[in-house]
Amino acid sequence: MDAVEIIARKRDGHALTRAEIDFFVHGYTAGRIPDYQASAWLMAVYLNGMNDVETRDLTLAMAESGDRLDLSDIAPLVVDKHSTGGVGDKVSLIVAPVAAACGLPVAKISGRGLGFTGGTLDKLESIPGYRTDLTEMEFRAQLSRIGVVLTGQTGDLAPADGKLYSLRDVTATVASIPLIVGSILSKKIAGGAHAVCLDVKVGHGALMQTLDDARELARALVSHGTALGLRVTALISDMNQPLGHAVGNAIEVREAINVLRGGSPGDLADHCLRIASEMLVLGQRVSGIEEGLLRAREAIESGSAWQKFRELVVAQGGQVRYVDEPDLLPQAPVQEITVARVSGYVAAIQAAEVGLTVMRLGGGRYEKDESIDHGVGVILHRRVGDLVESGDPLFTVLANDEVGLERAQERLLEAHSLTDEPVRPLPLFYDRIT
Amino acid sequence: MDAVEIIARKRDGHALTRAEIDFFVHGYTAGRIPDYQASAWLMAVYLNGMNDVETRDLTLAMAESGDRLDLSDIAPLVVDKHSTGGVGDKVSLIVAPVAAACGLPVAKISGRGLGFTGGTLDKLESIPGYRTDLTEMEFRAQLSRIGVVLTGQTGDLAPADGKLYSLRDVTATVASIPLIVGSILSKKIAGGAHAVCLDVKVGHGALMQTLDDARELARALVSHGTALGLRVTALISDMNQPLGHAVGNAIEVREAINVLRGGSPGDLADHCLRIASEMLVLGQRVSGIEEGLLRAREAIESGSAWQKFRELVVAQGGQVRYVDEPDLLPQAPVQEITVARVSGYVAAIQAAEVGLTVMRLGGGRYEKDESIDHGVGVILHRRVGDLVESGDPLFTVLANDEVGLERAQERLLEAHSLTDEPVRPLPLFYDRIT
Repeated sequence: MDAVEIIARKRDGHALTRAEIDFFVHGYTAGRIPDYQASAWLMAVYLNGMNDVETRDLTLAMAESGDRLDLSDIAPLVVDKHSTGGVGDKVSLIVAPVAAACGLPVAKISGRGLGFTGGTLDKLESIPGYRTDLTEMEFRAQLSRIGVVLTGQTGDLAPADGKLYSLRDVTATVASIPLIVGSILSKKIAGGAHAVCLDVKVGHGALMQTLDDARELARALVSHGTALGLRVTALISDMNQPLGHAVGNAIEVREAINVLRGGSPGDLADHCLRIASEMLVLGQRVSGIEEGLLRAREAIESGSAWQKFRELVVAQGGQVRYVDEPDLLPQAPVQEITVARVSGYVAAIQAAEVGLTVMRLGGGRYEKDESIDHGVGVILHRRVGDLVESGDPLFTVLANDEVGLERAQERLLEAHSLTDEPVRPLPLFYDRIT
Repeated sequence: MDAVEIIARKRDGHALTRAEIDFFVHGYTAGRIPDYQASAWLMAVYLNGMNDVETRDLTLAMAESGDRLDLSDIAPLVVDKHSTGGVGDKVSLIVAPVAAACGLPVAKISGRGLGFTGGTLDKLESIPGYRTDLTEMEFRAQLSRIGVVLTGQTGDLAPADGKLYSLRDVTATVASIPLIVGSILSKKIAGGAHAVCLDVKVGHGALMQTLDDARELARALVSHGTALGLRVTALISDMNQPLGHAVGNAIEVREAINVLRGGSPGDLADHCLRIASEMLVLGQRVSGIEEGLLRAREAIESGSAWQKFRELVVAQGGQVRYVDEPDLLPQAPVQEITVARVSGYVAAIQAAEVGLTVMRLGGGRYEKDESIDHGVGVILHRRVGDLVESGDPLFTVLANDEVGLERAQERLLEAHSLTDEPVRPLPLFYDRIT
């Protein structure tokens, strides 16, 4: 077998065999196949697609490219969640303790942000001392003791995905359904999940820009996941505007804490309750969505979810006083509220623009392994559909200097559009696929 | 402008602008765009194609990627020839001196072999002392003095092509019409040609396997070449069996010498007379093909073509006694004739297999910059359509040892197929496109 031959077969629209896919994926992971052959192959896959069998073979080849975690001895039914990435998405910070407080063990392996999409690990590291590099032994011990873990990879899970993803990012081959399915499901399988709730984002701030595309991806994830032995539910949720009000690192942790403490009802809380509820259903802790929502809400109202979050922070070495008094979390020095110059209904808040603004402020990465600033960010005071009077606060920028502040304000003003006609609020979810 | 964006536009089937193509080609040549982005782009071009304007823009971007030769002061109408590559193709060795002997200045820049396709430079270097690395000054002086040059690149002509071709070769993106057109024509333009006779090969031993594909390529080369200001004639010639009888390096020089001395009429001589005649027409030395054929034949019969070849060898430092007594040229020590085991008509001689056999004997390269053996090779005693009696010589192998000999013999026996029914000889040419 030979890499050029396999590229040529995919180029010519043939279905690859399991052996060919294994040869290519493992050869690339091991460095025997160079980047330039992998990227030609990725483009051929992007343009000619993969059938169902190939997509599953790809997923398995990637899942088997490194270590695999088996947590069955600690949790017989491991439920994970995954978001396809968005702006202001701090959902994992909230649903992990909520679900754990409801008795569902949550062992969540998260990633860092790249591009305008934030990463859960970056947000968590705003909490001084919080470790995201648990060893497998620490990971297991913590899961068994407090029922919740929120960390980075332990060991080398699905290294093929990390390597291929970096390459896709710079070769315009990200938005391919078989490649996305392989990427997401391989990590979940390697991480030991038995069930996954997938939060597929759709809109200007998401990989999938149309509902049709998002549905196609969600259906592919559910059908391939199921065929590979996972229990999968996919929700299609809105990413035309950022999720919640805060976009940044520490600032998103603060918003998550507010939700966990019951102090912030609204879209973000509703979104999280729904995801938590789906996880409880997948984990067979409740009989249906309604009971799941009830239990999740109770966990917040009773304070048990908040206590679980505190336990989590303590267990992973975080200084708990920073979450008890979130104003202590890093905050950029230059903060200013920008008010609306005219009155009107908020017609759009371009999520991607908001994400890029925070990235530019220093809160995100242009390249892998860049360090980021936890203190910068943006608070959006309004959501699509809200009526704004001239002079009302529209957003607050947290920047390191005046130059950054002004640049961000300009960009954010452009990201907001107001109109005279009433605007319907955006839905949280568009569809649920099982 | 940004490489990922340009890849994405081609991926999505858009036509690229001249500025985008320049950015990509020059960025890649200069090393600012890495191989992995270029190969994703090449695959997108392969699968989504390029329109006429893009193809010409690509050709010009490549032609302008390095030095350009201007020979107008020496020869007001520079005529070149180019073969798309085949097995046993020693045509340049013959037509350059023939055309020069007819008064047409021939300044031919040739390449080395890669894969089973031989290269003119490798063949010429069988002649001890023959230099293929003339400086531009030597090149010009020789052209002006004796009217013929056969060498490698002087200066850095169309470096984008060299770099892109190496990458295409290992990423399954060779057989793309816009990429082939860009590659061939950019080199001709950078080399200062005003007119080109293209020998487009078709068959099992060629890049283009069907007559339709070869015609499509020939038409594209002629129409783009013409639009770019070149005079172009394309002949479509057979490459189902090797061209002539010899395949190897020194052994092909010997066959070429035989033809030049008038001692080897037949397919190869006829093929070369036709190409030379087309060059004379393009160079406005004759009024039409018939006159061209007559003049070319006269050049051989009068000995003037042979004298021009000797002059060429002497001018480029080759020891002329080796061409006067070609038995002195390198010859591998183990030589054996293989005879037909049965009688029959030769139905096929797989050109690619013959080429691969010689490559395996050491006469070709698996990788760029590998050294090669000039003395090994194969002589095919029969051509498709010939009647062979059991016991008749079928081929002779020149190998370095018994193991190589036997392996080659086995492979060559498989490459020949005999049949009981009479077989029509293969034509030399299928079509002529202007």
